[in-house]
Amino acid sequence: MKYDYLIVGAGFFGSVLSERIANDLGSKVLVIDKRPHIGGNCYSKLDEETGIEVHRYGTHIFHTSSRKVWNYITRFTAFNGYHHQVLTTYRNKVYQMPINLETINSFYNANLKPHEAQEFLKKEIEKNHVRAPQNLEEKAIASVGRSLYEAFIKGYTIKQWDKDPRELPTNIITRLPVRYNYRKDYFVDSRWQGIPLEGYAMVFKNMLKSTNIHIELNCDYFEHRNEFNVTKKVIYTGPIDRYFDYVYGKLEWRTAKFQKEIVELEDYQGTSVMNYADFAVKYTRIHEPKHLHPERKFTKQKTIIFYETSGSDSNDPYYPVNTESNYNLFKKYKALAQQEKGVIIGGRLGDYAYYDMDKTILAALKCYERQLVDSTS
Amino acid sequence: MKYDYLIVGAGFFGSVLSERIANDLGSKVLVIDKRPHIGGNCYSKLDEETGIEVHRYGTHIFHTSSRKVWNYITRFTAFNGYHHQVLTTYRNKVYQMPINLETINSFYNANLKPHEAQEFLKKEIEKNHVRAPQNLEEKAIASVGRSLYEAFIKGYTIKQWDKDPRELPTNIITRLPVRYNYRKDYFVDSRWQGIPLEGYAMVFKNMLKSTNIHIELNCDYFEHRNEFNVTKKVIYTGPIDRYFDYVYGKLEWRTAKFQKEIVELEDYQGTSVMNYADFAVKYTRIHEPKHLHPERKFTKQKTIIFYETSGSDSNDPYYPVNTESNYNLFKKYKALAQQEKGVIIGGRLGDYAYYDMDKTILAALKCYERQLVDSTS
Repeated sequence: MKYDYLIVGAGFFGSVLSERIANDLGSKVLVIDKRPHIGGNCYSKLDEETGIEVHRYGTHIFHTSSRKVWNYITRFTAFNGYHHQVLTTYRNKVYQMPINLETINSFYNANLKPHEAQEFLKKEIEKNHVRAPQNLEEKAIASVGRSLYEAFIKGYTIKQWDKDPRELPTNIITRLPVRYNYRKDYFVDSRWQGIPLEGYAMVFKNMLKSTNIHIELNCDYFEHRNEFNVTKKVIYTGPIDRYFDYVYGKLEWRTAKFQKEIVELEDYQGTSVMNYADFAVKYTRIHEPKHLHPERKFTKQKTIIFYETSGSDSNDPYYPVNTESNYNLFKKYKALAQQEKGVIIGGRLGDYAYYDMDKTILAALKCYERQLVDSTS
Repeated sequence: MKYDYLIVGAGFFGSVLSERIANDLGSKVLVIDKRPHIGGNCYSKLDEETGIEVHRYGTHIFHTSSRKVWNYITRFTAFNGYHHQVLTTYRNKVYQMPINLETINSFYNANLKPHEAQEFLKKEIEKNHVRAPQNLEEKAIASVGRSLYEAFIKGYTIKQWDKDPRELPTNIITRLPVRYNYRKDYFVDSRWQGIPLEGYAMVFKNMLKSTNIHIELNCDYFEHRNEFNVTKKVIYTGPIDRYFDYVYGKLEWRTAKFQKEIVELEDYQGTSVMNYADFAVKYTRIHEPKHLHPERKFTKQKTIIFYETSGSDSNDPYYPVNTESNYNLFKKYKALAQQEKGVIIGGRLGDYAYYDMDKTILAALKCYERQLVDSTS
C-alpha cells in the first residue's frame, strides 16, 4: 500500500498530525505503533473487574491555558470537572504539595498568615545561607530551608533519580515553588482542566477515525523500516537517539513502573495521587484512578491502586534527564535530524523534552502549520 | 411610557426574564431596582483604590451542573478557572470545610485512611447515640460526633442564627456532609465553576443591553406602584410578604453584614473565605476577594478584607429561616400569589428559598418557558 505520510507512534504528537493531515490536507496516512493500542502513555482503559478507568502509564490530567489547544481537543472529547491536587505522606502524616501555607503551618505546627510565613521561611533559608547553589540539595535548601527540604524533597528525590541530591546538577529542577497561600489546585495557572469523560482511548479513537487514516498496531518501525511505501514524509515520534541507531551514544531516560493491586474497599487513600516522601518507603507514589472520575458512580466495594517506583530504562522512556551532557548529546542528534530529508522528528521522545499533553498538542499543531501546510502549498 | 412587562428587581431572576422577554419574545420591558445598580446581591465592582473586584454582598462563586444554565450564562460572560475551597479557623488552627479526611486527621492528630476514618467516626457518634434528633445540636452530633460538633458547628451556628443550637429545629440544616476523602473542592458535584472574567456587573450589563429593555435604578416599586403602565405582566422578585403588605405577618430573614478593611499586605489570609468557628470570635467569616481572580495580576501591596457578621433584618434579606412556622406562613402568601392576576412572583426572595445563582437562572428559564412563551402564543 502507498501512503502520503507515515506516522511512527500514536501518542498525541503523532495523532494530532495524523488527524490534521487526513482531515485538513486530505492526504492518506499510515499510523503505526509498536504497542497494541493507540494513545501512547496517555492511554486509559476500563478495568473489567472493577469498572474503573485505569491510566496504565500513570495518572494523566489534562490541563491547559492555551485557547488554541482547548478548542482543538474539545472537538474530540468533553472533560469532567476534575481538578488535580497532590498530597504527600511524610512520617505518617499527610501534607499538601507543592509546599503551601497549609504545608508550612502543619509541618511547623503554626498558624502563620501569608506574610508571616514568608518572613519565617526567609529566616529558615538564611540559617543555611547558600549564595550560589552547586547542586540540587543546595538549590532546594536555598528555596525552602533545610527542614522542609529534608522532609519533602530529599528522600523523594533520591527515590526518583537514584542519586544523592548533592550529586545532581542544579538545573535538574527549576526553582521549587512555595505558595504562601492555601491554594491546593496543582495546576493553578491552567484555565481549563479535567479528564476526558469517556477516557483517553476514546479521544484518540475520535482523532483517528478518518477513512484517510490506516492504523497498524504491534508494529515496530525499525523492524519494517524499508518496507513502507511513503510518497511524502515520515513523522517519527520515538526516541531521537534510537532513530539514528545510537550513533553518538544513548540519551538517559528515567522510567516509571506501576504495580497494580485491587483492594476490597470503596476508597483506599481518599485521593488520586499520594506521594511518599520518606526514603524508607520504597515507592514514590500510590495512584488511585477511581478519584479521577468523581462524576462516575461505582457500585462495587473495590478500588485499584498502583504503586509507582522509579527506574532507569531507556527502553521504556518517561522523563528526560536534564543534565548538561544529555543536553549536549541531544543537540548533536537534533543536528542530524535537521539534515534528514523527508523526515520530521518530534514529540516528547523526539524532542527529548518533558512536555505536558497540551504542550505536545500545541507543538504538533505548530509543526503542521509550519512544516506541512506550507511545504505542500 | 407604556411597557409590555415590568420587572421588579434586577437580580438573576429578573434579569434572565428581562433578557428572554426582550430578545426572544421581542417585547418591551421596564426593569426597576431600588438599589443604585443592577445585579442584586451578586453585584461586584472594581475597588478604585486597590483594583480588586469586590463582591459587595458576600463572595459569589458561580457553579452548576446544568448544561442548560451553563449554555445560557456563557452567552454573556466567560469564566476564570477558580474552584472554591472553604477553610475554618478553630482555636488558632486552620482546617478544611466541609469536614473531610484532612479535617478529621488534623483534628484528631491521626493518619486514618478513608475506611478507618469511617469506622472511627461511627464510634464517635455512638458515644452519644441519638436515635431521633430533636434539635440541631442532636442532629449534628448524630452526623459527626460531639467533638467535631463542638469544634466546627456549635460556635459558628450560634453566631449564624443567634440561637442555642438546642433551640433550633432539626430541619434548619440538612444532614452534615462528611467526606471520607481529601476532596477540598467545595462544589465537588458541579461540573462547571468559576468567577465571571470581567466581574458580575458586566454579566448583567450584557444580559440587559437590548434596546427593548429600559432600566430604572433607585426606584422602589412600592413608592410608584400605581404609576406604571404595563400591558401584559408584572414580574416581582422582591420579598413575597412585602408584596402583600405583610397581611399575614412577616417572614423571618437572616442577613449578613460586611465590614470592609483595606490591609497594606499583598495577601492577608491566603484564601478567599476563612470561617471562624470559635464563638469568642465575633465575626463568622473573613472574605478576601483578591483570591477569586488568580488570573489577574495585582501590582499593589494592598488587599481588601470583609468581616462578615450575621444578623436579623427583614429589610436586608439574605437567608430564609427554614422553620415550620415560616414555611407555613410562606405557603399562605404563595396561595395569595397564585390568585393574583397578571403578576408572577419568583426568585430567591419571592420563593423564600436559598437558591444558588444557577438554580435561580434555571427557575427563571423555566418560568419563561412555562408561563410566558405559552401564555403569549
